[in-house]
Amino acid sequence: MNKGIGHVNVGDAIDSFMLIKDVTKGVTSNGKPFLTLILRDSTGEIEAKLWDSTKEDEALFIPEQIIKLAGEINQFRGKSQLKIFSVRPAQLTDGVHISDFVEKAPVEKKVLTEKLTEAIFEMKNPTLQRIVRAFIKKYQEDLLNYPAAVKNHHEYVSGLAHHVVSMLQIAKELHKLYPQLNKDLLYAGVILHDIGKIRELSGVVTTSYTVEGKLLGHIPMMVEEIALMAKELQIEGEEEVLILQHLILSHHGKAEWGSPKPPQVREAELLHLIDLIDAKMNMLNRALDKVKPGEFTERLFAMDNRAFYKPLFEEG
Amino acid sequence: MNKGIGHVNVGDAIDSFMLIKDVTKGVTSNGKPFLTLILRDSTGEIEAKLWDSTKEDEALFIPEQIIKLAGEINQFRGKSQLKIFSVRPAQLTDGVHISDFVEKAPVEKKVLTEKLTEAIFEMKNPTLQRIVRAFIKKYQEDLLNYPAAVKNHHEYVSGLAHHVVSMLQIAKELHKLYPQLNKDLLYAGVILHDIGKIRELSGVVTTSYTVEGKLLGHIPMMVEEIALMAKELQIEGEEEVLILQHLILSHHGKAEWGSPKPPQVREAELLHLIDLIDAKMNMLNRALDKVKPGEFTERLFAMDNRAFYKPLFEEG
Amino acid sequence: MNKGIGHVNVGDAIDSFMLIKDVTKGVTSNGKPFLTLILRDSTGEIEAKLWDSTKEDEALFIPEQIIKLAGEINQFRGKSQLKIFSVRPAQLTDGVHISDFVEKAPVEKKVLTEKLTEAIFEMKNPTLQRIVRAFIKKYQEDLLNYPAAVKNHHEYVSGLAHHVVSMLQIAKELHKLYPQLNKDLLYAGVILHDIGKIRELSGVVTTSYTVEGKLLGHIPMMVEEIALMAKELQIEGEEEVLILQHLILSHHGKAEWGSPKPPQVREAELLHLIDLIDAKMNMLNRALDKVKPGEFTERLFAMDNRAFYKPLFEEG
Amino acid sequence: MNKGIGHVNVGDAIDSFMLIKDVTKGVTSNGKPFLTLILRDSTGEIEAKLWDSTKEDEALFIPEQIIKLAGEINQFRGKSQLKIFSVRPAQLTDGVHISDFVEKAPVEKKVLTEKLTEAIFEMKNPTLQRIVRAFIKKYQEDLLNYPAAVKNHHEYVSGLAHHVVSMLQIAKELHKLYPQLNKDLLYAGVILHDIGKIRELSGVVTTSYTVEGKLLGHIPMMVEEIALMAKELQIEGEEEVLILQHLILSHHGKAEWGSPKPPQVREAELLHLIDLIDAKMNMLNRALDKVKPGEFTERLFAMDNRAFYKPLFEEG
Amino acid sequence: MNKGIGHVNVGDAIDSFMLIKDVTKGVTSNGKPFLTLILRDSTGEIEAKLWDSTKEDEALFIPEQIIKLAGEINQFRGKSQLKIFSVRPAQLTDGVHISDFVEKAPVEKKVLTEKLTEAIFEMKNPTLQRIVRAFIKKYQEDLLNYPAAVKNHHEYVSGLAHHVVSMLQIAKELHKLYPQLNKDLLYAGVILHDIGKIRELSGVVTTSYTVEGKLLGHIPMMVEEIALMAKELQIEGEEEVLILQHLILSHHGKAEWGSPKPPQVREAELLHLIDLIDAKMNMLNRALDKVKPGEFTERLFAMDNRAFYKPLFEEG
Amino acid sequence: MNKGIGHVNVGDAIDSFMLIKDVTKGVTSNGKPFLTLILRDSTGEIEAKLWDSTKEDEALFIPEQIIKLAGEINQFRGKSQLKIFSVRPAQLTDGVHISDFVEKAPVEKKVLTEKLTEAIFEMKNPTLQRIVRAFIKKYQEDLLNYPAAVKNHHEYVSGLAHHVVSMLQIAKELHKLYPQLNKDLLYAGVILHDIGKIRELSGVVTTSYTVEGKLLGHIPMMVEEIALMAKELQIEGEEEVLILQHLILSHHGKAEWGSPKPPQVREAELLHLIDLIDAKMNMLNRALDKVKPGEFTERLFAMDNRAFYKPLFEEG
Repeated sequence: MNKGIGHVNVGDAIDSFMLIKDVTKGVTSNGKPFLTLILRDSTGEIEAKLWDSTKEDEALFIPEQIIKLAGEINQFRGKSQLKIFSVRPAQLTDGVHISDFVEKAPVEKKVLTEKLTEAIFEMKNPTLQRIVRAFIKKYQEDLLNYPAAVKNHHEYVSGLAHHVVSMLQIAKELHKLYPQLNKDLLYAGVILHDIGKIRELSGVVTTSYTVEGKLLGHIPMMVEEIALMAKELQIEGEEEVLILQHLILSHHGKAEWGSPKPPQVREAELLHLIDLIDAKMNMLNRALDKVKPGEFTERLFAMDNRAFYKPLFEEG
Repeated sequence: MNKGIGHVNVGDAIDSFMLIKDVTKGVTSNGKPFLTLILRDSTGEIEAKLWDSTKEDEALFIPEQIIKLAGEINQFRGKSQLKIFSVRPAQLTDGVHISDFVEKAPVEKKVLTEKLTEAIFEMKNPTLQRIVRAFIKKYQEDLLNYPAAVKNHHEYVSGLAHHVVSMLQIAKELHKLYPQLNKDLLYAGVILHDIGKIRELSGVVTTSYTVEGKLLGHIPMMVEEIALMAKELQIEGEEEVLILQHLILSHHGKAEWGSPKPPQVREAELLHLIDLIDAKMNMLNRALDKVKPGEFTERLFAMDNRAFYKPLFEEG
Repeated sequence: MNKGIGHVNVGDAIDSFMLIKDVTKGVTSNGKPFLTLILRDSTGEIEAKLWDSTKEDEALFIPEQIIKLAGEINQFRGKSQLKIFSVRPAQLTDGVHISDFVEKAPVEKKVLTEKLTEAIFEMKNPTLQRIVRAFIKKYQEDLLNYPAAVKNHHEYVSGLAHHVVSMLQIAKELHKLYPQLNKDLLYAGVILHDIGKIRELSGVVTTSYTVEGKLLGHIPMMVEEIALMAKELQIEGEEEVLILQHLILSHHGKAEWGSPKPPQVREAELLHLIDLIDAKMNMLNRALDKVKPGEFTERLFAMDNRAFYKPLFEEG
Repeated sequence: MNKGIGHVNVGDAIDSFMLIKDVTKGVTSNGKPFLTLILRDSTGEIEAKLWDSTKEDEALFIPEQIIKLAGEINQFRGKSQLKIFSVRPAQLTDGVHISDFVEKAPVEKKVLTEKLTEAIFEMKNPTLQRIVRAFIKKYQEDLLNYPAAVKNHHEYVSGLAHHVVSMLQIAKELHKLYPQLNKDLLYAGVILHDIGKIRELSGVVTTSYTVEGKLLGHIPMMVEEIALMAKELQIEGEEEVLILQHLILSHHGKAEWGSPKPPQVREAELLHLIDLIDAKMNMLNRALDKVKPGEFTERLFAMDNRAFYKPLFEEG
Repeated sequence: MNKGIGHVNVGDAIDSFMLIKDVTKGVTSNGKPFLTLILRDSTGEIEAKLWDSTKEDEALFIPEQIIKLAGEINQFRGKSQLKIFSVRPAQLTDGVHISDFVEKAPVEKKVLTEKLTEAIFEMKNPTLQRIVRAFIKKYQEDLLNYPAAVKNHHEYVSGLAHHVVSMLQIAKELHKLYPQLNKDLLYAGVILHDIGKIRELSGVVTTSYTVEGKLLGHIPMMVEEIALMAKELQIEGEEEVLILQHLILSHHGKAEWGSPKPPQVREAELLHLIDLIDAKMNMLNRALDKVKPGEFTERLFAMDNRAFYKPLFEEG
Repeated sequence: MNKGIGHVNVGDAIDSFMLIKDVTKGVTSNGKPFLTLILRDSTGEIEAKLWDSTKEDEALFIPEQIIKLAGEINQFRGKSQLKIFSVRPAQLTDGVHISDFVEKAPVEKKVLTEKLTEAIFEMKNPTLQRIVRAFIKKYQEDLLNYPAAVKNHHEYVSGLAHHVVSMLQIAKELHKLYPQLNKDLLYAGVILHDIGKIRELSGVVTTSYTVEGKLLGHIPMMVEEIALMAKELQIEGEEEVLILQHLILSHHGKAEWGSPKPPQVREAELLHLIDLIDAKMNMLNRALDKVKPGEFTERLFAMDNRAFYKPLFEEG
């Protein structure tokens, strides 16, 4: 199987390495134990059942374990399911690594770093530039690895940086069209707006919410981080700090969406809109990639549960 | 008075030509008749009272009449009001024209036409290009004169074309960032999305809603126009026609905002977002132009009644 | 089994012809294939499982195929399910037809046609009468066959015409009570309001939404059809055409319910209310027919998920 | 002035008797006292100012006083206002009565009584008939005099009975179309549904809400009254009593509209819809009577603030 | 098993008496019948499957039957499930009673009675005191046995009285802080506010909604009961009766939550808030009792589906 | 006039000192300038007009100036208005001070300080106690002077401390009833929850929102302050700090009300409810103080625009 689990069809035979993302133990109606495995490679996920599982199986097949398996794609309640013929844990000699099984941004980390550096270089306001540089330095490693979300959009390695770099490109072009915009402020908002996710989310591979992520959320956490950083840089009280905190605080656009204050500065409004565009295009492009012209995508929860149509005339 | 009515302060003396936009007759608490005039020049509007008005005054001072007046700026219930010292209708020899008193887009019609032509020239899909050309031909005159709305955004001469041309520029850049987008479809949607306003609105100078504008609205009217045009061009039934109708129908994004179907095609979603950005930036830029750094704008009804702050550090 | 699948109880033996409405393939926890069949006759639907299905079964038992089967009614997760003992496809010599297995309106097509003709005959406004006649002619066949919806109300053969004829009767009586109403306008609105469903829905037997149904919806499609028909009849621009389009456009009553403009003409408001009454009475009568006095119906999704009570004192 | 205050135009001279509905004392900017009078005759209402009012004026011109006045119709802030030239209280010898100045239902009390009696005569269920008869007897006088509301619909003498009788006619016809309906239950619901308004509203001429009307509302009050009446008639515990209480309780359709339980019985749902139709037709007919073809009515608050259009082609 | 079904873990062996709360019959994919039992003891509930059930089993194992069973705790789709090894109905000689298997308030009935009596003794307003005494007398038995709800809060034996007594304590303290409050009115409201639940709910052990509970609800039923009681006590028409009815009617706070009138009397507003506090604290305390420090509770439907965190530092 | 401006009636003569809260300049319909003054004493506010005002008047009568005036209470558009007979600025020799004209909490600052100290003394958790002490020290002066809001509740000198102290009393009693509560956490939340208002509001006398108050709001500002304080006290990272930040962040209860995270800790939920009770009781008590038994208060905007009734039987 070379094409990856995201691209298989019912009936395909499978013989490949995969990563266990999640495991649940169950009991059949006959009282026999089995394991439900969520498996993934870099192209997608699939559910698999390991029937008549033993205590040894339960100890071997745990999350973040890589396995080698042979099987076949079946269908169960309208969804694909992998039927396992044989399975074993991967060994050192197999030469496979967790990083081979997770999805990555379509742009290299090196390129992402260059684009970020370039943007910061364009900034002229010293206060804004200093804050941005300080955060980039503090979080460089994580910023280049973290996803931008647990699911829905940019939920892959380097997703956070990929999202920021795309938004910077939009910001740059909109600044040309609307020269009244303060480009430095907009860049600073774009680069920092989601950095709070590094504390809100648990990590890169099997991402969930941290306790402080649940109780505070990435928005207030980042407002707080800017205050602490401003103190450290001895620029607290400068108006740029307040306005930048406002951009972060308001970038979800509405109280119902998690911003206790709505945008009240021009660049804050635009930051919200650019964030929306890049998140939605990322979701749409990935969902439409999976269907053929003339078909609808599955319903996309984060797009108000809409299914999107791929026109036929695009084929030509 | 050279600076224009949009820029006067309380206490300023006025001696200039203005256009009557609206007139209402009233009676004071002492039973004396007066006229309330809404006057405008190319920079803004102001209310004025003509006390002790006569029957002759009522006949002379009617909407779309240009007048010469002298007076002073007062304040009434927190709003500026023009106190009239003397007033007379403009005469032929004054050499003034209605077009001198209406606001215009900041871009010349010639430039707008060029940009439109350029965009159509870029299009490759023959069906989409034919429909767009046909509508441009049918409505060329009005498209270059109509405002994009009665109020809120681009509510000036050539506002409709100005809005379209700005949106085309955004569309072009986003297509570079997201090459999966069908540029022809997006261009066709941008150019046609608001053309129904030409039937929805009554005209260029003192714009209101037509009866069919109120009963049908510009969105269903434009869906209908595309059907009639497709029939005329003998391309009815082609999928491009259906998808283009869908873009028009869904471009307000939600049922509550007037789109009976939400966007269900990638370019429809993006058309909605680009429309939002350009309308909001137009509103914000014009409102912020009127205030000084450190101040808030008046509340903007179409921006959820928010007031926007102009940071002080932008001054430097 | 003579009583029909809509009236069986758990434990009943079944030996009859049925129509396959839908088929899904599944795999048991032991890895054995089976088919889930949705079967129907003219009284209702039931799910059935065909265990250990073969490739031949998959080829034989497909949607719109009539089958002869013997089995028994069981219960599964609170719903009735048909356990199959034996099954075979119907043969020519069985003398059964698809039309025997679909639900039909409780009124004959002939009667429906007469009632429609009668109503049109009552109309005096020539413009409205011409449009109505033209549409009746264009869609006569489908109008008498189509359901009024995929589910919820009048979802049976001739449902659309049955709905229209009931509404005409209400319209007629309300016109007597409120003689200010324009009866011709109201009749035209009633007859045409849902004709767009003929393009929105895929057909009579196994009804689903068409692509244009999903992307445009029956309301804008019918507004468009009236424009095209008016052009064909050379009556475009007459006020009756606009007002009739408004009635169609607004007949769902609110933007959230799919009408981009709310009713703004007296007859439009009434059309909406009459539509509501007939749809609701149809749903309620059919749900209450299935329960005994003293019981509640199942929850009705299209009635805000309410269950309705059938009083005991009605028995007497 | 013969045409009535509801039909005057700006500039008309007035010389007639009118009823004072409300009076407020004010002080001009010069510190002089004046009275703002709300005056009415049987066709409508108008505001009038009595300038330089004396203590005697304040004592003479009080609510429910009839006055003779001469004056002229002016306009103030877009609304008609009566300018008073001379005014005096009516005298016994003038031969005018309060009942001459209030709007009445377009149907005579005698006819309303006959129609009610007829409907009760049609009822066959003895329990329902007994309750209805008992209430008719208890409230006969008020039922024939009370309005159906403070404003919006049927807000005139006998409005309550007029509303009930119109609804009975609709109920009768819908029972013919949907014979499954329990006509007796529906009739009982129609007749009793708003009788609680007799306790909720203060009276017939200058109607406002009573304290118990504000704290309990007519719906719970009527549920309570049925319980007390059932006890008196010794039929408490019969299911008809419960179901009838449910019809009253649920007739506003939704919790947000004042019904703590939504309709859960077929006739309850229909009662709500019939109530809606008659209230809306009453509002619409009266608003459209005041405008000419080609015009819109004023915005109707109780119709979601919509303005309604009167088509031109109705003129013919 | 001594620890009770609410505290077991997967893998635990069970050998104890339990009460059958609910039974459903099912058929496996192999066509074999089985019973799904909902079992409970005084600490909680669990689902159990009785495979290959016979007609005799169906007759023996019915709701409110006590059984003796041996088995083991398994997991099925993320929830605990009891796997039955052996089971038999309890016998007289087992010495077990239904009351052993239902949850009870943590306060004795005797104490609850004393606290109620004490509160009534504190009341000084004779009218309010008489009504309260009359209801306590009428419903004493049920008031001490009924739960306060079917689920969510105080859903155990004596739950209603426990809820009332807790609320009385809060009312007493708030009266000290805000002495303007009318304590008698507040006490009367607290004691009577949920007594309508005795008619709304079917009973103490396997509680569901009665037909009148569904069609009227406990709030209008209690308003009605107060009217009937006031008549019996010959105090109808006294203002205390009206205000008390208002407190009952408005105690859910908003129309959407079942109160057709919102609180419009100070004590009505406070009654609503005290009710909220005691219901929420009851839910929270019971949910948090089940988790360890550092964990979140399950999602609580009646708390807007929130999960609550139990801090670690509480351990110390 | 001894009774204070909050208690005057129309017709009362006034001769007293008052504080100017706000001034607006206007021009009458005759073009004459006047000043609209908002005046206050410790009991309330009133509007006054100073006709024919001079440049000198404009310079003398400015906000925060105390004046001596004689006049009379009139009525204008349903509201009381003060008619000025004579007016002069207060002089040093008059012996009046701004503090005489502002409303104060009904509890002395000394008592408020004692109660606060007492509560902190009760706390046992050292981390929570340290944070609370540090904030009390930092803001002691302002905490004892600031109002709790610009309007609606506790909008008077020491309002913030008065609100906190009342809430502490409720917290203490609820902790007795629900001993599972963590009293220290609840106390810390109560004391700190609104301290952010000291930065959100401009000051004590003529209070408005600061720029950072508008752009960030008191909730995120206080979350940030706790982070900075924790750093200063070297206790950052302790769980108490996180949980306390969560209490502050969530104390408005819902995203729509300004809390980006809802309460997810037991004490956070209770803090929200206690805040609600004390704010509402403060509003209700002050509004009901102004009306007589048998009357309704004015509509209270912050109580969903409800008017509250004061029962007659409270008089006895």
